[in-house]
Order: sequence, then C-alpha cells, then structure tokens
Amino acid sequence: MTGNILGERFVVSSFGESHGKCIGILIDGCPAGMKLNESDIQPLLDLRKPGQSNITTQRKEDDKVEIISGIFNQHTTGAPICMIIWNKDQDSRPYESIKSIPRPGHSDYTSLIKYGGYADYRGSGRFSGRLTATFVMAGAVAKKLLKQVLGIETIAYTIEIGGIRSDDISFQEAKDNTYNNDIRCPDKKKSEDMRSAILNAKRKGDSLGGIVECVSINVPVGLGEPIFGSLESDISKALFSIPAVKGVEFGSGFDGSRKTGSENNDLFIKSSSGEIITKTNNSGGILGGISNGMPLVIRTGFKPASSIAKRQHTLNLATSEETDLIVSGRHDPCVVPRAPPIIESVVSIILADHAIRNGMISSVLNNKRSGDI
Amino acid sequence: MTGNILGERFVVSSFGESHGKCIGILIDGCPAGMKLNESDIQPLLDLRKPGQSNITTQRKEDDKVEIISGIFNQHTTGAPICMIIWNKDQDSRPYESIKSIPRPGHSDYTSLIKYGGYADYRGSGRFSGRLTATFVMAGAVAKKLLKQVLGIETIAYTIEIGGIRSDDISFQEAKDNTYNNDIRCPDKKKSEDMRSAILNAKRKGDSLGGIVECVSINVPVGLGEPIFGSLESDISKALFSIPAVKGVEFGSGFDGSRKTGSENNDLFIKSSSGEIITKTNNSGGILGGISNGMPLVIRTGFKPASSIAKRQHTLNLATSEETDLIVSGRHDPCVVPRAPPIIESVVSIILADHAIRNGMISSVLNNKRSGDI
Amino acid sequence: MTGNILGERFVVSSFGESHGKCIGILIDGCPAGMKLNESDIQPLLDLRKPGQSNITTQRKEDDKVEIISGIFNQHTTGAPICMIIWNKDQDSRPYESIKSIPRPGHSDYTSLIKYGGYADYRGSGRFSGRLTATFVMAGAVAKKLLKQVLGIETIAYTIEIGGIRSDDISFQEAKDNTYNNDIRCPDKKKSEDMRSAILNAKRKGDSLGGIVECVSINVPVGLGEPIFGSLESDISKALFSIPAVKGVEFGSGFDGSRKTGSENNDLFIKSSSGEIITKTNNSGGILGGISNGMPLVIRTGFKPASSIAKRQHTLNLATSEETDLIVSGRHDPCVVPRAPPIIESVVSIILADHAIRNGMISSVLNNKRSGDI
Amino acid sequence: MTGNILGERFVVSSFGESHGKCIGILIDGCPAGMKLNESDIQPLLDLRKPGQSNITTQRKEDDKVEIISGIFNQHTTGAPICMIIWNKDQDSRPYESIKSIPRPGHSDYTSLIKYGGYADYRGSGRFSGRLTATFVMAGAVAKKLLKQVLGIETIAYTIEIGGIRSDDISFQEAKDNTYNNDIRCPDKKKSEDMRSAILNAKRKGDSLGGIVECVSINVPVGLGEPIFGSLESDISKALFSIPAVKGVEFGSGFDGSRKTGSENNDLFIKSSSGEIITKTNNSGGILGGISNGMPLVIRTGFKPASSIAKRQHTLNLATSEETDLIVSGRHDPCVVPRAPPIIESVVSIILADHAIRNGMISSVLNNKRSGDI
Repeated sequence: MTGNILGERFVVSSFGESHGKCIGILIDGCPAGMKLNESDIQPLLDLRKPGQSNITTQRKEDDKVEIISGIFNQHTTGAPICMIIWNKDQDSRPYESIKSIPRPGHSDYTSLIKYGGYADYRGSGRFSGRLTATFVMAGAVAKKLLKQVLGIETIAYTIEIGGIRSDDISFQEAKDNTYNNDIRCPDKKKSEDMRSAILNAKRKGDSLGGIVECVSINVPVGLGEPIFGSLESDISKALFSIPAVKGVEFGSGFDGSRKTGSENNDLFIKSSSGEIITKTNNSGGILGGISNGMPLVIRTGFKPASSIAKRQHTLNLATSEETDLIVSGRHDPCVVPRAPPIIESVVSIILADHAIRNGMISSVLNNKRSGDI
Repeated sequence: MTGNILGERFVVSSFGESHGKCIGILIDGCPAGMKLNESDIQPLLDLRKPGQSNITTQRKEDDKVEIISGIFNQHTTGAPICMIIWNKDQDSRPYESIKSIPRPGHSDYTSLIKYGGYADYRGSGRFSGRLTATFVMAGAVAKKLLKQVLGIETIAYTIEIGGIRSDDISFQEAKDNTYNNDIRCPDKKKSEDMRSAILNAKRKGDSLGGIVECVSINVPVGLGEPIFGSLESDISKALFSIPAVKGVEFGSGFDGSRKTGSENNDLFIKSSSGEIITKTNNSGGILGGISNGMPLVIRTGFKPASSIAKRQHTLNLATSEETDLIVSGRHDPCVVPRAPPIIESVVSIILADHAIRNGMISSVLNNKRSGDI
Repeated sequence: MTGNILGERFVVSSFGESHGKCIGILIDGCPAGMKLNESDIQPLLDLRKPGQSNITTQRKEDDKVEIISGIFNQHTTGAPICMIIWNKDQDSRPYESIKSIPRPGHSDYTSLIKYGGYADYRGSGRFSGRLTATFVMAGAVAKKLLKQVLGIETIAYTIEIGGIRSDDISFQEAKDNTYNNDIRCPDKKKSEDMRSAILNAKRKGDSLGGIVECVSINVPVGLGEPIFGSLESDISKALFSIPAVKGVEFGSGFDGSRKTGSENNDLFIKSSSGEIITKTNNSGGILGGISNGMPLVIRTGFKPASSIAKRQHTLNLATSEETDLIVSGRHDPCVVPRAPPIIESVVSIILADHAIRNGMISSVLNNKRSGDI
Repeated sequence: MTGNILGERFVVSSFGESHGKCIGILIDGCPAGMKLNESDIQPLLDLRKPGQSNITTQRKEDDKVEIISGIFNQHTTGAPICMIIWNKDQDSRPYESIKSIPRPGHSDYTSLIKYGGYADYRGSGRFSGRLTATFVMAGAVAKKLLKQVLGIETIAYTIEIGGIRSDDISFQEAKDNTYNNDIRCPDKKKSEDMRSAILNAKRKGDSLGGIVECVSINVPVGLGEPIFGSLESDISKALFSIPAVKGVEFGSGFDGSRKTGSENNDLFIKSSSGEIITKTNNSGGILGGISNGMPLVIRTGFKPASSIAKRQHTLNLATSEETDLIVSGRHDPCVVPRAPPIIESVVSIILADHAIRNGMISSVLNNKRSGDI
C-alpha cells in the first residue's frame, strides 16, 4: 500500500481505476502564481490519447481533464491541484475472465494474490496503462513550470520499434518532427518501417516493443542529490512506474559499458559563448547524480504489449487446470508510440521536484504582494 | 540536500566522506530479535574491499565495521543500528587539484558548483565509490533478515566486461563460482578473457566498464506497490545511487524491446510440485511492478571508471583556461569486479523494505515475550 | 507547500477550497477487503454539519460525500480512496474585503503574505474550518477499520465552553449522551449552561472557546514509536491541523505538571480478569510514547472563534491605513460543539496509521484468495 | 520502527542508547557554507548536563560532542553531519530489575511488550531522557543557522514547578536571567521558591513537574504549511518527543479557551517603525498555522519525574505476582530545569526545517563559487 505518491516537494498522488468512475492526480507543492487552466493540460493529454490511427487501440477515450481544486483567478494558489478525467463507455465484459485466468505477461496474477481477490480487475484496474494519463496531467503542469521559470524543455520520441532503430536525432528534429507522425519518431524513413512492422505484428495477433529517447535542455547545473537522491535514481524510479517499462539508461548507458574510459569520458571545454560544457555527452547530462548543464539524455525500453490476440497457454486458478486463452478487447499492438508524452511528463515531474528542492523555483512566482508589503 | 536517506520502513541513511573521519550508515526500522554482530557484516564488506588482486586499486582499505548502536545481548532491539568504518591512512594530496581542475567524467565539477566550493573534495568526498561500503554494511543486515525470515537469497555476478560477455549463468553456478575468482564472473573461461582485457586497459592507462547481473530467489508473490512503488522503481532508484551505474534493466530488459509479445510473454504453468510458475522468466520475476514468485533478474550497466592515467583535456576553473590533466592516485581500472556485493546489498535493502511494508516480516522476530504475557 | 499530506502507511491528502468546486480527501494505504460505501461515512459527516441548531452557523452545507475511487464490489481494494464533497450555494461576496483588510485572529494576513496574493480567499479558502469535513471523511474510514479489526472505539465530547466545565464523564456516558444534544456534552446540566453562554456571547456579537476530551478504548499495547514517532507526537500533529486548536494534552496533562510523582504515577495492577492494567490513568494510556493498553485520553483546547460581529480594529493593507472592521457572513459563535467528530476522525487516522505500521492491521482483510491459492 | 527520523528538509535521525556505546544524531539537509565545529555545540549541551547542582541527578555525564562527518575546513559541506557522544561510566546494575518489574510511570512495560523482550533496558535504553542530548546537538546547529541567516533567536525558561508560577517574563529578562540560576527561571524570587519545593520533594523521595515557556523572535511571516504542516503541528510533534512532556500550548493556549473572541483576537496595528504587528499576541505568533511575524510563544508541560525513591506498587511480570518497588539509581527530582535547552533545540530544528522548506534559507550560504563561475 501507499505506492501511489511520488516526490518530495512537488508531490503527485495518483488515484482512480481504468473502469471506475474516474482517474485523477493530486499535486501538492506547486508554487503559487502560475497561470493555469485546463487548456494548459489538454494538449499533452491529447497526444497520449488512443484511437488516433490504425496502429493504436481503437478504443475511444475522450480524456477531458477537469481541474477541481487549487486554481483561483486562473492561477495556481499554492494549494493542492486535483485533476480528474471522468471515465465513460467502458466495456468491462472482456475482463470477467481475468478473475480466475491470468493473462500471460500481465499483472492479473500478482494483483489477484496481493489484494486477496479484492482488486478492481476491470480494464486491469489500477494496473491499466490508462493510469498514465494521470501522470500526463501532472506532467503538463510540471512542464509549464519548468519552461516558464527555468526555460527547461523536454521532448521524448520513439527511436526503436521491433528492432528497427532510427538514426540519431537532434533536439531540433525532435521538436519539429516527433508529433507530426503517429509513430512519434522524428526519423521519417524509419518511422515508415516501424509502422509496417507494427501493422504486420497486428495482423498476426502479436505485438512489438521498442525504445523511447527523452532529452531535456536548459537544465541548470546542480539538480539532483548525491547518493540516494541522484537524478538518475529519481528519474528511473518514475520511469519504471510506467507499465511495460523494463529498462532505463542515461547517456551512453549500456553501450557505454562497452567503451573505455578515454572514449566515454566527456572532456570539459568552453563553448563559443564562454560557458563550461563538455565536448561529448556520454554522461547524459548527469555527473555524480547531479545535472552538469548538458542536455539530459534518457532511454526507456518497453516490452512488447502483453495483450495479444494469439492463443496462449495459462492456468485457470479457480479450477487449477491448465487452459488456453485468447485475450479479447481492443488493445495496442505497440504501446511505444503513445509513450513519449508520458515520458516527458514523468521526467518533468522529477525535474520540477528537484528544482523546488534546490531552491531554483520559489514557492511564489510573480509575487503580487512583494512590492507593496 | 537530504538525498542521503532511502526506504520507507527499513530506512538507511548514509554519511561520511572518503577521506573524513569515517563512513557510516544508520538503519532505522530493523525488526527486533535478530541475532547480529560485526561478524555478520564483515564478510560481505571484505568481498568489496580493494587491494585484493592486480585488477583492482592497490589502495589498502581495511574497512572494519563497528556497530555503535542498536544491538543488545547480540540481538537487534528495534532501535536504530549505526555502523561505522573508521578511515585511516588516506592520502589526500592528489586531490588538491580537483578544487579547480575538474576531472572528466567525475562529479568534481557538479559538486563544486552545487555546494558553492564547500564540498569535501578529498578522495571525491561524498561522491567516492568508497561510500558504497556503507550500502554493504546495511545490505548485510538486510540479507540476513531476508534469508532468515523468508529464505530469500540474492547473488550478483559479473556477466560482461569490456564487451566480453559470459555465457548464461544458473543460480547454482553463480553461488558456486562467483566469489572464487577476482573478476566475480562464474564463467571461468570468460573471466580469464575479462581479466586480460582489464590488465590490457590498465597498461594503457585506460579503464573498462561492464555489466553485473543479480538474481534473487524465494521472493514471495506480492512484493512491490503499484504505480510509483513498483519493485522496479524502488530497485532502480537504489541501483542508480551506485557511482558509475548508467543503465538498469529487468528480465529480458532492452532485449525484450526487440521481441514480440508472443515471444516475450511468460506462460503460466504448474511446476512439478504443483506451484504456479511461469515457463520462461522474461519478466524478471516482476509483473505489474509486483513480484510474481519467479527469480528476480536485474542487470546493471557500469560505465568505464572515470579516473584514468591518460592525459585528458579539461578546464582550470580558477583561471578559466583550458588545460591537460593526468589523474594521479591509485584507481580501479574497472570497478565491475567490486560491484557484486554492492548490488546484492542495495537489492536486499529494497526487498527488506518492501517485505516489512507488506507485513511479511514482522516488527519482532522470535518474540520472547509472546509466550508469557 | 506540501503540508497537505499526513501519515506514513495510512496516508491522507486533503484538497479543495471552501468556496471552490469541492473539498476532498485521498487515502492511500487503506487495506483491501473492508466493506465500504458512502453510508459508512455520511453519518459522521452529518454530525459535523452546521445549521443544526441556533448555536451553530445558519449556513446550509449539505456535505454529501461521494467516493470516486478505490471501491469495487462494495469493498476497499487496496487502491487509493478518493472522496469528494461538491460545494454549492457559497456566498463569496463577504470575503472580498479580506483581500486587503485582514480579520483579526484569522489566517487572512499570513495567507496573503505567504502566497503572494494568489491564495483563494473566498470563505477563507484552504484555511476554512470547512476543510475539517475532509478529515471526517477519512476519519470515518479509519474508525470503521479500527473497530472492525481491533475493536478500537473512539469518542470525543465537549467538556468545557466559556469556562464552564462539565463533571467527569465515563466512556459509557460519553457514548450514550454526547450526540443527543447540540453541545455534544454528555453532562446534561452543564450542557445547558454552556448553551446559555454561547447564546449570550452570540447576542453580544462575540464568541466562545472551549475544550474537547477524546477517549479511545481497546487500544492494544504497542502503538507508537519511540522518539519522534511517539503516539503523542503524531496525534498532536494531527490535532493542531484543526483550525482554532491552540492546546493539546494527554492524560493528566498540564494538571499533572502540578502533581508529585507519587500522585501522578499509575501503579501496575492486575484487573479482575487477570490483565495487566494501571490503577489510575494519569498517563492517558501512553507510556514512553507507546500505548499501554489503557484508554487513550486526550484534551484539545479551542480558542474562541475569530469571526465576531463586534467592531474590531485592523489595517487596510492596500492603503496602509488603520481601519475598523465588522466581519459579516454567517459564523459559528462557538466551534467547539462541531469539533467532536473532527477530533474522533484525526485521532482515528493516526491510530490506523500506527496500527498498520505495527503490523496489527494487515494489508488484506478477509483474504478471499488465501484459501484456494 | 522508524520513528527516529524527524523533518523534511532539515532531517534529524537520532540513535544510540543510554548505556550503549554512544548516543548520536545525524542531520541531513544542513546547508553548505556555515562555519561549524564542536565549540558551537558544546555550550548548549553543557546547559543540559546533569550534576550541576543539588536539584539535578548527581550522575556525571561529560557529554562531549564529537562531529564525525559533514564538516570540512571548519564549514558545513551540505553532506550529512553525524555527531556522537560516547558513553562512559554507566552503572547498569540498577536496571536488571526492569526486565520483569516495570516501574510505574515509565516506558519499561510498553517497551518490553513492543520489542518482545529485546529492547536494551539499561538506563531505559532508547527511552532515556539522556537521548534528549541528541536533540540538543542538532538543535545547536539549527540555532546557529537560524540566527545567522534570519536573525531568529529562541530562548526557553522555566515558568512553573510544583504549582509555583513565575511572573510574566520579557524576552530580555529571559535572555539575561534564564541560565544564571540552576532552575532556569528568570524570575529570581520564584526560582528560589521552586528550588525549595524541589528539595522538599527530593527529601520525601518524591518528584515534581512543571512548565517551560519558549519564545522565538525575528521569525519571518510565512513559516508553516496549512493543514497538516502547520507550525503548531510540527512543533508539537517535536516537543512530544521529549520524555515526560504531556501538554503543549501556543499563545494564550488553554487559557484562551476561556476567553471571548473579542478578548482573544489580536488586533492588527502598525508599529512605531511602520511594520504590521498585532497589539496583543494571544495567537503566539501563529495564525492559520503560519507564522505572523510576532514572537512564537509555546508552553510545554512536564509530568513529575517517574523515577521516585518512594515505595510503589507494581507487578512482577515474570511471576505474575504483585510486588513493591523502590527505584534505585540517581534520578532527577525534577526534570524541568534541564528542559530549556532541549526545548530550544527541538523548536529550532522545526523552524530550520520550515525555513528551508520555504526557501528562506538557501542550500549554500556565502557561496564561494557564485562570483567566479
């Protein structure tokens, strides 16, 4: 219990179930004085929404955000911000079987045991990918805060699906081309190959995994705490909260494990404008767990979606008999194209938390009273 | 600040500096009634100790643990357990240069900026790999607790160094052969190749990185909390606290991102003894963030050690001039062989924390009073 | 920021504003398997509701609770429980003046400075006594949990208003007579005097304070953690979250400060049924910060309500001029009679948190799966 | 378990036992750049030390603080500060009886049950008043930080012992006269009466309780968080961690419960220097849980010391028989005179925590690097 709260100063608490009344998120610790309304949040949510093309699930989820606390006169007040998406039109019938026949690769079995049979299994309940919409709501707030106060921008994009790897992507390419294709891959050519691979897997009733890269620029030096509060520690903790994530790496990551020190070390130089930068960025912008002013570079590996139309072997826990299962319902053949806004969100939540912890974002922005009192 | 505390119920707080008076760890939340003295902790510390062969640094660190609180009549009491290693014979002279000339790949630069010039830079201070000895002290306590109450055993071993990958390793091989060679790789043949590679890099004044695999068996179903308290979240947070770690993956990990769902899903079957298991273990023992009873499988990627004898380009921050630097001092050409006990430790700390959170370990073991009162 | 979260294992997060869309509470950590619906919560809320007699404010607040997450098939699931009261019919006009003319004894001034002019001042926003309804929603869940699993019962009642003190009250009297009068004082005679005093103050445009006593029975030995997690520490922290509370004492409390050790020490004896009890209960059921099995006894002192109809001197912060103020709006001449359900609630929240921390309440009640798997 | 950690940004963790090797405290979150060595801490410790006169226990406790981490070049570094007092010359023999014969009013019984017979009972172990020396070590650091950065000064003094109440004390009187008498009461006349009362109780083998007042000046407006993080909440939580504390009140406190609103409300006025102040300070400097710029005023009630030489009735838990007990050992006939430095300490710890949370104290003081980088 109580694994639903993240952060220390910008604290988010997720609640709700896939097929319950709603899903929601509560932010405690957002500074006062930032202009905020639903229109700041809806666009990022829309980028996550399913049903936008033939490579994602055909489920329709409107996912309209409603802010129910913490905003007054169109600004944050310093009070907790609660945001809700009301669920509707959920078809819970396909999930009756989960009660006793756990789907391979899914949380059905662990959830059943852990919660003693009481968990809401409809649409996978708390374990649904749908809950990532709650991360996005909070992430949109964090993104705006980071952009406004520190100029930090974060973008995530698909770099690999089904073993097809994009070319290297510059930050500008990512900004220009990520969200103009439904694969969310800025490499146009490779994104076509990825789409074909997804459609091919879909035809076979199978699914694909992939990798998303995320870059944050304008991160000041000094975010992150040594030892257990390293930036890598807190970002990875947040990323592994996303269903289907099974790997996280920073900078040169696992590839860096195959390099020599002289190849992997980033030399300090002065930029043309006289700033201290590094010549390469194998560290992914983090040295000793602390941001060094270079772009943060994070890669997140997703397993292929567990829900596949192929016949699979499993057990009926009620009868203790072996059985076969075909997972019905409308599922994504590949979750990766829907992941970038989610990853941007959780990374932004952690950066906002650390920026506040470090005093780089103060508790009141644009203080209206500071002048006259 | 305050990034030095980890956990919720089995809470560890690290303190001390590489060249200060001591390094230490405080455990709050260890159940009462477990037999414990220094001899339970020293063996794991000894496995991490440098100076044991020609592939690690020749620094002599005795690393003798002293328990200074929390033990009475040779048992834990429920009170905080404070453990110390007193430093000695540290040669701090080579570090004077770090004050103004940051070593590439090191925390020197970020530490200098973050702490405004006040951080203890001797031996890298708080950022030293030496601090991992504090993780090991707490890890030894966690390991004993997990073994005694739940039968959980955790072993970590080198599977890759300098691009040389071992064959697949069974749990039994790992137990039998990890700690009988200084590479900590159970694959005898490959460990020889790895040693040659390390010595070769050392001769060139360079360093190597690598990958460590960690497996825990007998983990009960139900550890981990959904969303932000997933087992992957908390384990990765702890692993990324270890200096030089730049990647973490569970089960099939990044390779799984290249598989199809039908390849990667683990089918539920009954074991010969009638237990519910999965046929494969691509999930690494974690479904929906919660342990499923299969072995936990975690891989951790280390970058090559930053401290190399080769001449490197950097800046003199005092003069703002570019300069060259040769890192002196005695350093590991590859930190990977010293990592397994550290990884076993942080994984055990997280498992102990979750086992207590889940009520699987009670606050008093072997209750002496339960009978008569 | 982030002062809106309380507890470690039974964690409650309060949100909402007095005149915003809603007020709400989120519980993370409630065990799975407890029967729960709105009808378990509404009765305690109704006891707090204003407008029930001529001694409380005539504001009508329906205060209908709606559970929007965490319940499935009429049971808790282990997922976060979010509960909402939708606001309606709030008259915000009287509060426009607070923007620049702080009411004496109120949070107007500190809120204005702290939040830089962005706080929602309508109906005192986050500082409104109305927010205590969120404590009651969570408290009702905690009370049911404690009653069902451990048999703990908690009742609070008025013992003093305007200096009029009730006679000593037994637990049975408190249960029988607290909620059958609008003063919430089980001493019938004195409750009449208190009512007269309140009505007298009301006529004069003034207000009264008072003291509430709270008793919990069937508390097992062992709740509370030494040093900073003492039961007194955590209960007082929660009680001082209630607006207008300025004093908290346990057992003989401040009176005990005037006794000798031989008078105040509670001697250990055996009860007629052979249990270990104390002869007196000056400790209020807590020794060394830990429950000793005797009834918890807590007294909470409330200041007189700040909102009075009398003309008061204050400042106009906009003009920096001194001015007079008559607080309009409908206010309680004495908040004490509405406090007992709030106090029962926060005490129950803390006891539930500690009972879970101590393993006395497990994470799944009435495990449906434990039999067959 | 895990009740030994306090705070969110200035986090203190207490460890050690009365008759173990040592007692100690770990501070995580102290800003870098503050000059600090043992001489900043020892004076406050010395004020708490027993054996200074015939009204306190004749135990000799040298209580020499040793800083073992977190200081470099005589300054804080931002790393955790660990401070130790090594125990010596402890006579543990009188405590053997506690194992089975709990002393009335003491934690012996609750400790025995809670920790299943494993707790260190020597000198009351973790429950000893001696542990308050660990609060003082951390408090001395917090006091210096608050004084240096914000000018906050905190002083506590005895106002009542054995029912003898001092006259009202001004802050200046408190500063001048608290620590020049062993009662720690600035009212010279009443302090003589209190001494006589203590000596009289001591002669009878009995003990006295009393009340300590604590005032902090120069507290800026805005410390404290609404709802659960109110300044009263967090200060009371810390105060109730001190053994023998059974009551806490702020400003007019319980007396205020007997006033009318028009008497108790503090009117806003402008000071002669043009600042916004209140005419009276019945709020004790806290409105809505947030500091209002007026002096904080806190009163803490102590029960009479439980350890008395008088014969008392209790039980032998081993034999389950009733028995009489005379507590041997050297004990304080009244703990109140030793409490002021402890109370100043825990109040300062909480204020430092909130000042950091509010961004009023930054993470680096006197930044050496800010100029040149």
